[in-house]
Amino acid sequence: MKFVKMHGIGNDFIFVEDLENKLVEKESEIAIKVCDRHFGIGADGLVLIRSSEDCDIQMTIINSDGSKPNMCGNAIRCFSRYVYDKGFVKGKEFSVETGDGRKDIKLNLKDEEVTGVRVFMGKESYKASDIPLKEGLKEIINFKVDVCGNEVLLNTALVGVPHTVIIDNEDKFKTNFGKNIEKLEIFKEGSNINFIKIIDKDHIIVRTWERGAGETLACGTGACASVAILNRLGHVSENVEVTLPGGKLNIDLEEEGIYMTGPGEYICEGEIL
Amino acid sequence: MKFVKMHGIGNDFIFVEDLENKLVEKESEIAIKVCDRHFGIGADGLVLIRSSEDCDIQMTIINSDGSKPNMCGNAIRCFSRYVYDKGFVKGKEFSVETGDGRKDIKLNLKDEEVTGVRVFMGKESYKASDIPLKEGLKEIINFKVDVCGNEVLLNTALVGVPHTVIIDNEDKFKTNFGKNIEKLEIFKEGSNINFIKIIDKDHIIVRTWERGAGETLACGTGACASVAILNRLGHVSENVEVTLPGGKLNIDLEEEGIYMTGPGEYICEGEIL
Repeated sequence: MKFVKMHGIGNDFIFVEDLENKLVEKESEIAIKVCDRHFGIGADGLVLIRSSEDCDIQMTIINSDGSKPNMCGNAIRCFSRYVYDKGFVKGKEFSVETGDGRKDIKLNLKDEEVTGVRVFMGKESYKASDIPLKEGLKEIINFKVDVCGNEVLLNTALVGVPHTVIIDNEDKFKTNFGKNIEKLEIFKEGSNINFIKIIDKDHIIVRTWERGAGETLACGTGACASVAILNRLGHVSENVEVTLPGGKLNIDLEEEGIYMTGPGEYICEGEIL
Repeated sequence: MKFVKMHGIGNDFIFVEDLENKLVEKESEIAIKVCDRHFGIGADGLVLIRSSEDCDIQMTIINSDGSKPNMCGNAIRCFSRYVYDKGFVKGKEFSVETGDGRKDIKLNLKDEEVTGVRVFMGKESYKASDIPLKEGLKEIINFKVDVCGNEVLLNTALVGVPHTVIIDNEDKFKTNFGKNIEKLEIFKEGSNINFIKIIDKDHIIVRTWERGAGETLACGTGACASVAILNRLGHVSENVEVTLPGGKLNIDLEEEGIYMTGPGEYICEGEIL
């Protein structure tokens, strides 16, 4: 079986072409095998390239544990570069069918090489029923809580998953402090926690604690939620460069919602033996 | 650059041919890059295949952090299968030049396919100066210590690195209990810790805590040291099948020293992009 390994700012994936849906029944088993970091190639997930009836192409992601997320911002950037380079789509604007619906893609090209991929990530929501929050709460903005003797201000929005932002300009908190916050009873289903250092109105540094998982190299939805929230609070502009542990993303806030632009990088290609 | 990824019971390596020593100056840099599990292919180490003047072929290993171990039992089994399959050596017995000197290899073949690789691992030593032990100690055999309120019997030998064996037939200890033992002051340079369950005289289960590193899937020298020590204590025979978390090894005690036989498995081959 042929494969290509790529990463989106450190979130890594194995790409396998399955245009005729021949791998559907075995896809979880294949993902667990090829994503194993010692007995397989090793990756965060397997991405299958499939034909779509409603969009130009279809992306199926399976995590390394065999579970199936609807969508992943880092994967779709790599995917978009791959399908363009292979000629599966024509032109630098196309649509991708995902478990989370249609995603519209725009490629940045330089001499026919893909230098960046712009993905529409939807609109953030502050609604208690969307995030969801405990009954009685309307929203969480500048919400003061005491965590292990530290007073922190929480700000929460949904961008695909719940994200809470804590401004930490003095680097007071290690990222794993997030485990003390992710399960506060104000969150019905927990929350990812983003620690932010504001450099200036166009540049921030984000460290994300993923609920139930830990520190991440690259959380695309976290970057989006962080810029949306900080813009609402008046701290940043509409076009912000976000530095994450694994690399950089550009987040643009438009009337219709949030756009994320970032790289998808090739690592290797080959054959599974 | 072309590569092959292989594993020896879960200890995984990227193989690159460098018969003309062209990569010598960049080898650490390449290892760090290709072994990175998110930004590279991902592996425990890079193995370079090089020509030898004194042996049939030469193996150079570089760890994922760029450091250079002299030898690795799991790597040399994969290496031996690779160089035989590629025709770099003729016949099923050959010699490999390593940082730890010449290693003699014997392949088990079935229909020309390599089903196992037998490597001479040298002779164990119980000498205080070899391990090394604190002044005043002659050796550590059935050496009673109290660790965090638990009375344990330690037995220590050198097989490349210091290995301590604790018989734990009742699965009383988690492997990470080793971190309480590895730095006891009786060990001048620490010790790896092997927790053993004796199934019968020909079968044991070994879980290894690597000093400074943690739990391992597959410690070849730990398996060798465990069988040598348990044989000296009268618990096992000279030919023992050892089950490790990552797979199985066969350890044979001969007059001249210890032989380890085990698999080397292919994962994938390809090109670094």
